Amino acid sequence: MNNFNFYSPTEFVFGRKTENSIADYIKKYNGTKVLVHYGSKSAVKSGLLDRVKKSLDNAEIDYMLLGGVLPNPRDTKVYEGINICRENGIDFILCVGGGSVIDSGKAISIGVEYDGDFWDFYSTDKKIEKALPIGVVLTIAAAGSEGSDSTVITKEDGMLKRSTGSDIIRPKFAILNPELTMTLPAYQTACGATDIMAHVLERYITNTKEVEITDRLCEAVLLTMIKETPRAIKEPDNYHARANIMWAGTVAHNDIVGVGREGDWNSHTIEHELSGLYDCAHGAGLAVIMPSWMEFVYKHDIMRFAQLAVRVWGCEMNFQNPELTAYEGIQRFRHFLSSIGMPINFEQIGAKKEDIPLLIEKQGISDGWGFVPLDKDAVYQIYMNAVNAKI
Amino acid sequence: MNNFNFYSPTEFVFGRKTENSIADYIKKYNGTKVLVHYGSKSAVKSGLLDRVKKSLDNAEIDYMLLGGVLPNPRDTKVYEGINICRENGIDFILCVGGGSVIDSGKAISIGVEYDGDFWDFYSTDKKIEKALPIGVVLTIAAAGSEGSDSTVITKEDGMLKRSTGSDIIRPKFAILNPELTMTLPAYQTACGATDIMAHVLERYITNTKEVEITDRLCEAVLLTMIKETPRAIKEPDNYHARANIMWAGTVAHNDIVGVGREGDWNSHTIEHELSGLYDCAHGAGLAVIMPSWMEFVYKHDIMRFAQLAVRVWGCEMNFQNPELTAYEGIQRFRHFLSSIGMPINFEQIGAKKEDIPLLIEKQGISDGWGFVPLDKDAVYQIYMNAVNAKI
Repeated sequence: MNNFNFYSPTEFVFGRKTENSIADYIKKYNGTKVLVHYGSKSAVKSGLLDRVKKSLDNAEIDYMLLGGVLPNPRDTKVYEGINICRENGIDFILCVGGGSVIDSGKAISIGVEYDGDFWDFYSTDKKIEKALPIGVVLTIAAAGSEGSDSTVITKEDGMLKRSTGSDIIRPKFAILNPELTMTLPAYQTACGATDIMAHVLERYITNTKEVEITDRLCEAVLLTMIKETPRAIKEPDNYHARANIMWAGTVAHNDIVGVGREGDWNSHTIEHELSGLYDCAHGAGLAVIMPSWMEFVYKHDIMRFAQLAVRVWGCEMNFQNPELTAYEGIQRFRHFLSSIGMPINFEQIGAKKEDIPLLIEKQGISDGWGFVPLDKDAVYQIYMNAVNAKI
Repeated sequence: MNNFNFYSPTEFVFGRKTENSIADYIKKYNGTKVLVHYGSKSAVKSGLLDRVKKSLDNAEIDYMLLGGVLPNPRDTKVYEGINICRENGIDFILCVGGGSVIDSGKAISIGVEYDGDFWDFYSTDKKIEKALPIGVVLTIAAAGSEGSDSTVITKEDGMLKRSTGSDIIRPKFAILNPELTMTLPAYQTACGATDIMAHVLERYITNTKEVEITDRLCEAVLLTMIKETPRAIKEPDNYHARANIMWAGTVAHNDIVGVGREGDWNSHTIEHELSGLYDCAHGAGLAVIMPSWMEFVYKHDIMRFAQLAVRVWGCEMNFQNPELTAYEGIQRFRHFLSSIGMPINFEQIGAKKEDIPLLIEKQGISDGWGFVPLDKDAVYQIYMNAVNAKI
């Protein structure tokens, strides 16, 4: 196990009707003038935004609204938010939505407190030193941004998708009411579930040895997702399925299951180019890329993939040929993704084989990093696995 | 799953040599005049205390020393600490030790900021509203107090052992260096491991339904302890075994694996009277009580205990008679405890059957509470199970 620091000071407020206490939490964390940041349709349509506004009105908390955050949130919206905050003396950002809204809110929170261009944090090694406090009302279990230290933004000019992070941008509080996710269509639910599983798998596939506690914690989240995701898709109003998925999503990415081990985020990075170029859902891109990436790297540590196959996917260990078990686990993962309605190859997300050189050109993979360091040829092979994937 | 709040703002600093940065963390959390609180022998003998003092000296941080905390820490030492803090304007408490030292430090931190008798918080429902900040250098993986919101103190007059808790008393930081636990004798290592497993099991055995994510996370910690504890006992210097146990111990009790579900802390309470009266190690008392308690309650929910038996203890499910599987899991637990050198019955901790009426008289179990609410007859039966236990 490697040395690590773990600091997760977010207050999680979980359960039915918890959004009713939104004003209390904003006050607790010293918000007096709030930017309410949200997406486009669902928060408005469901009436959630109206309820949030009413809570703030009742508590006499001053606020401004900034909606219209798109999936794969854009730098243009961030600049808009920074200006609003500066011009109006905003001291707290309330994100009502999912990962895109929260990531956008995090970017605004950094940008407001920085003299230069906020994109510096995403495009260089520049360290985050200050940020406005943010709070969250979560509406989809997926990105884990409600408890994480990271944020991903897409620069419209060139559709470059980049990330940054710091403990400083972890939300002060996150209100997690599983009821708010019951209206999600099956496809979005499955995309979210895929993202959650990817966050765990990218920690699980590691070269760090002797990490039994975090291995087991990772497996715990995956096993939960395998049980609860099909149930939430079949019974969208099942509170318990939604609740288990929601807490799994937070635990998957606040890093409690990933401390003390190297992760490998190359498949997230490879996917970002897909969703950046085709604007497909991030989870859908991951469903296409992750098994394809695993097929490329699994021989590097067959016993790790065999462990995953046996402990998580219920494969029987082939003691004569562990490689077969390792491979079987990857195929079961792909089958599972397909069974919850996810695409598994290029064609199913409208991606084109001919675009692969362009995708490779743009990709931001760091050289020499990860479970298996990837060069451009490797990335080509992974994209080709994704072109050819079938079940 | 029940509604819950989870707030764990402790900064965990984990790994080799991390205690060298102690002064930095005290400064980060605004400590200027520190009470260094510790036990009796090991912190001194190992040279750790000298290294801590040297770090504070080098950083020119003013401090006073208060050692001599006993296992099952006493109210008398707490009063002493409160006086020292008040008389010397102490603004930060650094606990160098295990659960006893940290629990004592937490009690002092509450007492300093309270006009009345600190025991009020332990003996009544009085709510903790303020406490001095505390930091930890952990020397044994066991109590989980380095990340928990709770503290247990024994009142010498009558040897009453009582607890209290609040998010306010969670340590600001906890330095966790597994190397510091390598000098622990096998018996103490096993006592600590038993305490860790008890913390998980007391969350696991619940009447709350639909808690797959926390069930799985609990199982993850237990599986890790089953693998790593015998290794740490056999190879005391095995860093990896110590590291996995250390993080398991923190995760077991900072409540990340127990949120949204009722626990049952009756066996901890029943044990407290044992270690209170006989001054045996808390972990040893738990090893005697927990399986005996399980034997008394398991028929209340056979499938829960069968799940534990299958998923954690590797029992094969008896589909014709799940009760046998459930019971087999409890026996495997007791065998495991015995295999790591723990006592499993009254005789082995020097407890006497004749004292049972006295133990029952003193016990602080709340009526009508827990997985199976216990009355005095029930507690009598559990103690009798512990008298008669054998493998």
